[in-house]
Amino acid sequence: MGIDPGLTRMGYGIVDGSGSRLSWLSSGVLATPREGRTAQRLARLFDDLSALISDFRPEVIAVERVFFKLNARTAVPVIQASGVALVAAARSGVSVYEYSPAEVKDAVVGVGSATKDQVRFMVGRILSIPDAPVSPDAADALGLAICHLHSRRMREVAEGAS
Amino acid sequence: MGIDPGLTRMGYGIVDGSGSRLSWLSSGVLATPREGRTAQRLARLFDDLSALISDFRPEVIAVERVFFKLNARTAVPVIQASGVALVAAARSGVSVYEYSPAEVKDAVVGVGSATKDQVRFMVGRILSIPDAPVSPDAADALGLAICHLHSRRMREVAEGAS
Repeated sequence: MGIDPGLTRMGYGIVDGSGSRLSWLSSGVLATPREGRTAQRLARLFDDLSALISDFRPEVIAVERVFFKLNARTAVPVIQASGVALVAAARSGVSVYEYSPAEVKDAVVGVGSATKDQVRFMVGRILSIPDAPVSPDAADALGLAICHLHSRRMREVAEGAS
Repeated sequence: MGIDPGLTRMGYGIVDGSGSRLSWLSSGVLATPREGRTAQRLARLFDDLSALISDFRPEVIAVERVFFKLNARTAVPVIQASGVALVAAARSGVSVYEYSPAEVKDAVVGVGSATKDQVRFMVGRILSIPDAPVSPDAADALGLAICHLHSRRMREVAEGAS
């Protein structure tokens, strides 16, 4: 399960990596109303995310690693939402990994500087998602799951070869 | 109850504002080991904070409002910890308020640019804390509680006068 943190829109995506090919299981966005109070909105994300984790019981959760950006107004809620996502994941007893946006782009598109549209396009191809459009937040979350599964396979190949 | 968010050290302080004078009930620091993983550390803070709230059942929780600062390395964990504190407070059904460091300093010392030492000194005086030293994180948390109670009294006086 991948999680793309955000206070207004938190993307999630669940990928089955057990077969020879990765396949899409579910994806979507947990949204909270902009006019709500921050504490209530974060609590709602925590509850919704905990419910999703409990429903899907993912083996691993990959959360986007947040960095300090220059846009102060949007950075604080995104970073708070990432903290909430990490807690929801850790409290469910699932292994938690963090990947940077560049790592995800590199894993999905092959270029760390890929655009959002390129990520969305490649996520759809890799997972053979039926033609239903996936929102950018959900695509980023699926990209995180793909990124984790790719790096896990790389580790397994490396271990098998040694 | 006041909460001064931090990943390594989360200060808390509980003040009784029911009498004619504010009085100290409890204060301390929830600490997590630096060598731990962020998700586990945040989850532990969430659990410890939820337990404290459940034990003391405060009427109101005042959390320090976080801002984007220039020190990137320390800003992200502090902001994540603030998100976790807000969720723990909101999920317990307690009213949550946020105050900036300048508002706290102004309420406690009378000057928005007061130093940490001045805040600690005045918190001790206002609450008549017995000579046990209070750590800076706990003093800031007590300061948040004082700030909320002061601004509540100001509102009550304003309402009573109108």
